[in-house]
Amino acid sequence: MSSGPLRFHAVWLRDNAQDHETRAQGNGQRLIALRDIPAETRIEAAEIAKPGTLEIRFAPERKRVSFDLAWLEAHAYDQAAAAQRGWLEDGVETWDADLMADVPCGDFAALTQGGRALQDWLGQIMRYGFAKVVNAPAAPGTLFDIVGLFGHVRETNYGRHFEVRTEVNPSNLAFTGLGLQAHTDNPYRDPVPTVQVLHCLESSAAGGENMVVDGFAAALRLRAEDPEGFDLLANHCARFEYAGEDGVCLTSRRPMIELAPDGALIGIRFNNRSCAAITDVPFDLMADYYAAYRRLGEIIDDTAMEVTFRLNPGEAFVIDNTRVLHARKGYSGEGTRWLQGCYADMDGLRSTYDAMVRSTALEAAE
Amino acid sequence: MSSGPLRFHAVWLRDNAQDHETRAQGNGQRLIALRDIPAETRIEAAEIAKPGTLEIRFAPERKRVSFDLAWLEAHAYDQAAAAQRGWLEDGVETWDADLMADVPCGDFAALTQGGRALQDWLGQIMRYGFAKVVNAPAAPGTLFDIVGLFGHVRETNYGRHFEVRTEVNPSNLAFTGLGLQAHTDNPYRDPVPTVQVLHCLESSAAGGENMVVDGFAAALRLRAEDPEGFDLLANHCARFEYAGEDGVCLTSRRPMIELAPDGALIGIRFNNRSCAAITDVPFDLMADYYAAYRRLGEIIDDTAMEVTFRLNPGEAFVIDNTRVLHARKGYSGEGTRWLQGCYADMDGLRSTYDAMVRSTALEAAE
Repeated sequence: MSSGPLRFHAVWLRDNAQDHETRAQGNGQRLIALRDIPAETRIEAAEIAKPGTLEIRFAPERKRVSFDLAWLEAHAYDQAAAAQRGWLEDGVETWDADLMADVPCGDFAALTQGGRALQDWLGQIMRYGFAKVVNAPAAPGTLFDIVGLFGHVRETNYGRHFEVRTEVNPSNLAFTGLGLQAHTDNPYRDPVPTVQVLHCLESSAAGGENMVVDGFAAALRLRAEDPEGFDLLANHCARFEYAGEDGVCLTSRRPMIELAPDGALIGIRFNNRSCAAITDVPFDLMADYYAAYRRLGEIIDDTAMEVTFRLNPGEAFVIDNTRVLHARKGYSGEGTRWLQGCYADMDGLRSTYDAMVRSTALEAAE
Repeated sequence: MSSGPLRFHAVWLRDNAQDHETRAQGNGQRLIALRDIPAETRIEAAEIAKPGTLEIRFAPERKRVSFDLAWLEAHAYDQAAAAQRGWLEDGVETWDADLMADVPCGDFAALTQGGRALQDWLGQIMRYGFAKVVNAPAAPGTLFDIVGLFGHVRETNYGRHFEVRTEVNPSNLAFTGLGLQAHTDNPYRDPVPTVQVLHCLESSAAGGENMVVDGFAAALRLRAEDPEGFDLLANHCARFEYAGEDGVCLTSRRPMIELAPDGALIGIRFNNRSCAAITDVPFDLMADYYAAYRRLGEIIDDTAMEVTFRLNPGEAFVIDNTRVLHARKGYSGEGTRWLQGCYADMDGLRSTYDAMVRSTALEAAE
């Protein structure tokens, strides 16, 4: 908890009143706009009316509002700002190859029951940016059942889902047997799909193992080694492009390392195949930018960063595509490898998780 | 064109080579990663082999690559960086109430033919952030035909689409007869849906007119009046929340004015109903932050900023939800008002437009 007094502004308190004239019953939406709150709002009186509750009378409205002290403490803003650029939001934990001993995983049948198993599995995706699913049917379309656990498919020009297997005239290198460097998907899309699901139907070919790398861990390792390089990749937009099909010309202008305005690390875009000509870095910085880009790639390629697993038929993995890179080893020869993939979004996943946590907390409080 | 020499780095040129070993035939994706290009790459020789073509031999690979001079000039980065924070990307044009005389609009039947009518209409959405559709059927589901002109529906917890009409126990204030302040939709979602489509089926109630406001124009007006206020809204995250249904708890932490790291104005989030407690602004800046937030709201409410129109049955509008705010006047009494709405994404819209422009340019060149 806090260690000293916490100050709040009158207008902030008034704007965050939870009374029935300010917030709608039921859906909780604010019924008023800031224009409905006088600019000269001030606190006329305040008292602890009963334990844990602060009563405030606002002037000039002469409006009385009760605030829960625990809520105020949880929403205090009278505190030191986060220090270093690249800080991680609460609940995010970086990882490296050591996580291979304990890959986040859920059993399909248990997940479909909802409850604690689903909550824990979603929590792992929030914490680590990915998790496997095991013991699912090896049937086409099962990936939609996995998305249905937490959200909705993001349909794109690739369809509601796509087939990952060797094609004769591939529109995308993903549909060949080539090994693929660890990458995030569709950085040329804005917004990127923030979740990817890959589900294995057949896997008898030699090779084709999947690898995942924590992009946040890679970015923070770059920051530790070369803070200026980290800043270069965060301060300038890269460009990405995909125009491999008729009628499609997807382009984006976004940084490889994305920070919130207050420096929180919120996204990674890394994809050698679809990186377009980078033209938003000033000439004098381009050599250093490329050196940082190269170093980030070396860190991503370092096997000490990588968690490798083989997806067997009926297994899948779900990744936060704004954070975790994925790769696959090359494959060829006898046998088959067939995955189905699709996109979805983290907002639905986070929402499902947070609603479960909230409902669990309410039950515990009853 | 450019007025002086344009410098390029050897590694940048090598990375952007378009030869068949570097880029895949057909889909255009890069076949190599930066790790495949020696760090000590340098230019060994360069000559204008034939008009418009620069031949470069790279060491130590001893690789010869041809570059189109026009391509190099179009992708030059040896130039002054953009000046002021809040600059607009090429092709974006801000507007105010004067646009009411010439609201961007397309005829449904013409749009479904594709070609120039569709290209122009998409171009208007790119330029102004919104456009109307007229003479569409007043039939349920027509909004999906509109989305199909350029992209794919973004399904959310509200479904593939939602019905906008008065409900008895509304899960969202949108489903009442209340007037709604101009807002962007779903700022509590991350990523936000970047396109919204609203299609009118019935409109016999008095009131309920639609209004749109250019959020970019509003932000730039704030910048002109109060540069520090603009910076406050851009430099600090607001918070948004929606938890009006069981199993839903959507939260986001994003600024009201979103800039790319190089200061380009790329997004607006503004919604009084779903703004949560703002806790990421330091205490010493909160009063000024709230003053800027208030002023931005006043600018948005200024009728000089607003384009108003009444949607008649069979009419619709499409908005870039990262830029243009929409509002509706209150309605009640006799008659009905029934709209269907859905979300989609700007990446597909931009892609469709850019592919049409590219294909038109190719035809013109033949």
